[in-house]
Amino acid sequence: MKAIARVAIPVLIVAFAFGAAYAQFAKPEDAIKYRQSVMFLIGQHIKRMGAVVQGKAAYKKDDFSANADVVEMLATLPWQAFTQPGTDKGDTIMTSAVFEKEKQFREISESFQTATAKLAAAARGDDLNAIKAQFGKTVQNCGTCHKEFRKK
Amino acid sequence: MKAIARVAIPVLIVAFAFGAAYAQFAKPEDAIKYRQSVMFLIGQHIKRMGAVVQGKAAYKKDDFSANADVVEMLATLPWQAFTQPGTDKGDTIMTSAVFEKEKQFREISESFQTATAKLAAAARGDDLNAIKAQFGKTVQNCGTCHKEFRKK
Repeated sequence: MKAIARVAIPVLIVAFAFGAAYAQFAKPEDAIKYRQSVMFLIGQHIKRMGAVVQGKAAYKKDDFSANADVVEMLATLPWQAFTQPGTDKGDTIMTSAVFEKEKQFREISESFQTATAKLAAAARGDDLNAIKAQFGKTVQNCGTCHKEFRKK
Repeated sequence: MKAIARVAIPVLIVAFAFGAAYAQFAKPEDAIKYRQSVMFLIGQHIKRMGAVVQGKAAYKKDDFSANADVVEMLATLPWQAFTQPGTDKGDTIMTSAVFEKEKQFREISESFQTATAKLAAAARGDDLNAIKAQFGKTVQNCGTCHKEFRKK
């Protein structure tokens, strides 16, 4: 999985172009389910890394790195699904603030993508303290975004 | 996204090791939701490519290739979530045949991963006929697997 690291920059460039035609949805429900699916998967892989960072699970470099690579990839996917018109209604906990403060939302999403790329890069190294520090910076983005853009 | 192609082989090696420690689940429901999330996302990106193959959407190389890269990556993820004990019960349409015919299940999952890697490779080229042919081979795996391992 190490080679995925090399794609961090091109992936980010693609991802930052929110309007990419390859990320269209047939209906609002699809966009909602799409972003929920990505977020659930990110959460699962973040939890696995979190258990290591918290000392609840053994640190195994390859496993941690694989989790970080998956999160880096997933972190590029869901943003356009959030900004689809009308998707603050229905089976969702997204707030309408995504539309009202779209610039702020984009900035946080970009910050998260940058952080996950750095985490994946760190995870290929052997400096566990650096890995833990970057993991902390990465998950800070989760809280920042959820506070504003996710219903309580 | 093009560079993701370079990781096809290492990704497959990781994925084929079903029991990788980085893919554990806290509870059966998490495994079910995990595989459903991955499958929904795969379905969304397959549909986007399918629309192009069927002539319902314009062929744009970069978009098609990005979709193929995402599917290649996602195709490595869900298999361990299927083989978690007890996850043929509950909110799932997976059949118990996954446990009874695990070798067959693994073979199909590996065939799918190989096909998605070939599709991603083809999608980086300019031979639309070859892309369409490989897309067809890729989605054949979906039907083969669903027929045996997904409830009607």
